[in-house]
Amino acid sequence: MKLTLLNSTLKADFDIIEKEMELAIQSEIELLQKASVQLLKAGGKRIRPVFVLLSAKFGSYNIHTIKNTAVALELIHMASLVHDDVIDDAELRRGKPTINYTWNDRIAMYTGDYILGSSLEYMTNIHNSLAHQILSNAIIEVCKGEMDQIKDKYRFNQNLRDYLRRIKRKTALLIAVSCELGAVTAGADEKTHRLLYKFGYFIGMSYQIIDDILDFTGTEKELGKPAGEDLRQGNITLPVLYAMQDEKLKSRVLKVNEGTTKEEMVGLISAIKDSGAIDKAYSVSRMYLKKAIHVLDKLPPIKAKKTLRDIAFYIGKRKY
Amino acid sequence: MKLTLLNSTLKADFDIIEKEMELAIQSEIELLQKASVQLLKAGGKRIRPVFVLLSAKFGSYNIHTIKNTAVALELIHMASLVHDDVIDDAELRRGKPTINYTWNDRIAMYTGDYILGSSLEYMTNIHNSLAHQILSNAIIEVCKGEMDQIKDKYRFNQNLRDYLRRIKRKTALLIAVSCELGAVTAGADEKTHRLLYKFGYFIGMSYQIIDDILDFTGTEKELGKPAGEDLRQGNITLPVLYAMQDEKLKSRVLKVNEGTTKEEMVGLISAIKDSGAIDKAYSVSRMYLKKAIHVLDKLPPIKAKKTLRDIAFYIGKRKY
Repeated sequence: MKLTLLNSTLKADFDIIEKEMELAIQSEIELLQKASVQLLKAGGKRIRPVFVLLSAKFGSYNIHTIKNTAVALELIHMASLVHDDVIDDAELRRGKPTINYTWNDRIAMYTGDYILGSSLEYMTNIHNSLAHQILSNAIIEVCKGEMDQIKDKYRFNQNLRDYLRRIKRKTALLIAVSCELGAVTAGADEKTHRLLYKFGYFIGMSYQIIDDILDFTGTEKELGKPAGEDLRQGNITLPVLYAMQDEKLKSRVLKVNEGTTKEEMVGLISAIKDSGAIDKAYSVSRMYLKKAIHVLDKLPPIKAKKTLRDIAFYIGKRKY
Repeated sequence: MKLTLLNSTLKADFDIIEKEMELAIQSEIELLQKASVQLLKAGGKRIRPVFVLLSAKFGSYNIHTIKNTAVALELIHMASLVHDDVIDDAELRRGKPTINYTWNDRIAMYTGDYILGSSLEYMTNIHNSLAHQILSNAIIEVCKGEMDQIKDKYRFNQNLRDYLRRIKRKTALLIAVSCELGAVTAGADEKTHRLLYKFGYFIGMSYQIIDDILDFTGTEKELGKPAGEDLRQGNITLPVLYAMQDEKLKSRVLKVNEGTTKEEMVGLISAIKDSGAIDKAYSVSRMYLKKAIHVLDKLPPIKAKKTLRDIAFYIGKRKY
């Protein structure tokens, strides 16, 4: 997240959350501590905490209670990344070696378990049964997303619906829930937290589609991993689905497997870029972005609303 | 669980739960389905569901609502076993090959994740916010137990307190919660569910101590894995702590590591058996059993109370 989008009060609150995250993952077990710190220091955009804080502004905002929601959600996200990297056999994330690559699958497994456990522990600080139901549901969907990811790998005959369901579970839902829970735990009314959920959902869909586009258009430096890595790992994303509408390109895509080299990918990536698939994917992302902005229009005119709009447009234009 | 301890109505309800478990783990992903079914078919004593049902008898018992609690708890337990086997590098459980041994650590990781996800899904059928809080807490403790297990492996200078805390998290807590939640979700009063929690806690402690004794006194056929396997894997249990009170025996125990052969273990096991350590451990188990029976005395005199008492004594005498 580009922090210039946030004002100085929010920045200070954001520091509180970052410090709280460090506390949350502390462990007496040296290896676990090392692995968790490596993960935390690798950064990330922390968009979930940002959305929690901004959504809480629509209720009675108190950083000392809302921080629990923000930390719990970011930790669920981090835990899912660690297990995802095991499933994807990923070596790099955000330019840093993954836990499974630095150590092994086993250590990645229990680092993920540990971070999920810490997240659940933070959740017990939230005294709101609706919040607990929403969070349990979110964890279920994250687990299901993990399963979808396994099931749909190298399954080239999947359709747009499969893709959209997968990115909903993988990304959009947790962003939607971040917006919803920010409002719920700050005591905002039902209409407001339902609108914020919708906003988060649309933004999350738009965000993930752009992420999937960047896998083709980004440089290795920007991505922190080689371009085309998603496809090489068998993750069939929106640009790939559009590219396969061209029969010639489809036959090339169908040949991709774990053994495909980086060099072979270079040619395929540029063919996909030339096919118009990227533009088509962008237009779907823009459609979701528009829907998000439309939802935002229905919310009361507080300062946080403008920041949410700025973030939405920033996400639409982001390059990494 | 020896089903002869249950009457025919309970047996029928127990079948409902077994069928529900099969439904719960169904997956479109072939590998995941295979791994989960292998785990389910390997059986287990299903003591958590039994305690849920019996405790629910202290409230308004309805199998169609209470089954959700029973299934959710048994699935949490199963998920933790799968990840535990990865941590312990275990090849066998209940005489059947483990998932990590049959496939690998990665598949075991996501089978465990999947079963935990299914468990959380069952929990959403429970409309009781106290129940959700208790369950979240239980999952946290199970995660912490997993971490304790990693931290305390081959740490021979641990004391009785470390051991008791570990088995509380590993076993007693989930049994306590099974008893508590059976009562809570059946709408029993607070005094009753607090007593049942205590009963379950004491029974769980007693149960795990006996499990740890059986690792030394059981045969490979009874245990479904070689005797002494816990110690060889670095799990320091109560008999080992007592055995180490003898300096000579201590120096032999300290030499145990992952490379210790089955043959070397045979001599050590018989020395531990001769040291009086087993008797001492049994007396601690009996102490917990007595406390459990004492708690039971305070509960209303319904039929389920007698069954709980029978199960308690059965656990005290079990051979596998």
